[in-house]
Amino acid sequence: MKLVTVDEFRIIDEYFAKRAGKRKDVRLGIGDDCAVLKMPPERELAVSIDSLVEGVHFFKGIPPYYIGYKSLAVSLSDMAAIGAEPAWVTLALTMPRLDKSWLKEFSAGFFSLLDEYSLQLVGGNISRGPLNITTELHGFLPPKEGLRRSGAKAGDLIYVTGDFGDTGLLLKMLHPSNNFYEVDKILMEKLYKQTPRVNAGLALRSNALATSAIDVSDGLAADLGHILESSNVGATIYVEKIPLSTWLKSNTSRAMAYEFALTAGDDYELCFTVTPDTMGTDGLLARSSKKQQKLNAIAKKCGCNIQCIGRIESRKGLRIKNADGTDFHLKRKDKGYSHKWQYKM
Amino acid sequence: MKLVTVDEFRIIDEYFAKRAGKRKDVRLGIGDDCAVLKMPPERELAVSIDSLVEGVHFFKGIPPYYIGYKSLAVSLSDMAAIGAEPAWVTLALTMPRLDKSWLKEFSAGFFSLLDEYSLQLVGGNISRGPLNITTELHGFLPPKEGLRRSGAKAGDLIYVTGDFGDTGLLLKMLHPSNNFYEVDKILMEKLYKQTPRVNAGLALRSNALATSAIDVSDGLAADLGHILESSNVGATIYVEKIPLSTWLKSNTSRAMAYEFALTAGDDYELCFTVTPDTMGTDGLLARSSKKQQKLNAIAKKCGCNIQCIGRIESRKGLRIKNADGTDFHLKRKDKGYSHKWQYKM
Repeated sequence: MKLVTVDEFRIIDEYFAKRAGKRKDVRLGIGDDCAVLKMPPERELAVSIDSLVEGVHFFKGIPPYYIGYKSLAVSLSDMAAIGAEPAWVTLALTMPRLDKSWLKEFSAGFFSLLDEYSLQLVGGNISRGPLNITTELHGFLPPKEGLRRSGAKAGDLIYVTGDFGDTGLLLKMLHPSNNFYEVDKILMEKLYKQTPRVNAGLALRSNALATSAIDVSDGLAADLGHILESSNVGATIYVEKIPLSTWLKSNTSRAMAYEFALTAGDDYELCFTVTPDTMGTDGLLARSSKKQQKLNAIAKKCGCNIQCIGRIESRKGLRIKNADGTDFHLKRKDKGYSHKWQYKM
Repeated sequence: MKLVTVDEFRIIDEYFAKRAGKRKDVRLGIGDDCAVLKMPPERELAVSIDSLVEGVHFFKGIPPYYIGYKSLAVSLSDMAAIGAEPAWVTLALTMPRLDKSWLKEFSAGFFSLLDEYSLQLVGGNISRGPLNITTELHGFLPPKEGLRRSGAKAGDLIYVTGDFGDTGLLLKMLHPSNNFYEVDKILMEKLYKQTPRVNAGLALRSNALATSAIDVSDGLAADLGHILESSNVGATIYVEKIPLSTWLKSNTSRAMAYEFALTAGDDYELCFTVTPDTMGTDGLLARSSKKQQKLNAIAKKCGCNIQCIGRIESRKGLRIKNADGTDFHLKRKDKGYSHKWQYKM
């Protein structure tokens, strides 16, 4: 592989190596054949790798700042789902040409999130190819303590963080040919700058509150479906309980809002289950419940709602109900092959 | 992201999840949001991420078996350079369409090497996009013991494993429009199925033999250059000492053979430095040298030549000499931007 000029190397150094972060647990960071990393005592390693591809995971031509931000947010969301403490990042970036202004903006978005979580970029690769950003995030867990998809039990309540469906509507509304990202920064940030629920995941794990968890990146119905399948259970959820933003409710019909909430991807919220301790008469945890109090504290600390949307049942399958107990019918039945297929290993 | 059909999931499971390997240090492998991995006691973590892009790192249309093999070989070569013991792999694969026969062949190549080194595929992602295979390899090192690029000292001898230049000539000779891979399996394997020098790297590190090391993926001159720069030293090497295959010597001129050996990438051999103990009169280690005996034993065990090609000097720069002491002139002076640029972090 021939290399770029020394001058160009220096510019990349400026944007990446020099801003990589400084953690004491990094024995050897950027600049050798491997990074060498010191694990904290009594911890296991959690890893997750994810790719973002232009035209598939983000619109062609959006400001690179958001691509940088999102490439790390996606991996942080996976760490959140398992309740791990994120630490080290590697980055494999391919791009059609060595575009320095693109790299400058991309790295600004990437490092804004990296710095927020005190992570370090410990290694990577930038080479020629169609635009593809692959990040691997490495984090820590106490032995045997990670949240799994597989721990849900009949009788558990189902919770979600934040709200759902905004990105679904946005992807329908916005088209890159409108240059919307030049006119509406608020919508842009809704679509590409989600807050990964790392702190909520950590709190759920360290308080031993959640029996199972997943991050919602493929739509609430599909991702809750993964919990049900892994846990060998079923569930009933109530659409009216699914939290929607005011923005979503004021921009689409009720039916479409829930459709987006249930089937659209990229929400990056957590869905998790909790075994109830003290129930109220309304089928939710009692106010006096210790678990409810802990959930309230986590919601407050993390600055996001935590809402019960239904219950795990031994009967297989996912039942989606209206408030009156009738079935809510999803329009989107295509669980099949689509242009945006993705298979997570 | 919409998902592929259940049937297609099963097929991918067949090719990947079911063949992923079974290591006892994997707490949670494929099938959740993160993998969870148990580090061995008293070890540090070595990681390296690499991408292969169609048309950049391999010819379009080559048999997917070789792409699968090479995608892991590249990362194993990085582990070799640092002397780490490889263990866990993650794979981020994007492809234009879910091509099952491609996946079947790719996974056969990938797992042939994975099984050889008793690795486990612990997580990953397959999604739509231009063909890009990104792997991260995770391995182990005793604390503070990894081989570095930065440890070479004036007076150290410079060694290489294996031979050089074959891939350089092959890339000139072969063009995918010739469908050469259908007619000449031997050339194909030379080009895409190199043996990563994992065992040599491990032996060099555990015997505390090498003061510095790198894997040669960008050409011997460039990669030795990285050692010199990181170690703040210079070197003289003798072209006649650079090992060439019989095949290379019989297919091109002497000058071109050394040109390829020095400047062409993808050799995936190791280049390392050794501080001499007992010198012979020929400027090499004496036969009686304990280090020479260890090097002989490593070469024998690993089934590859280990050859001294020159010496580290305090005077900066890389001097390339003919046997008579005159300068060997490289034709290829373009250290600048090329279509195959790559920047390793």
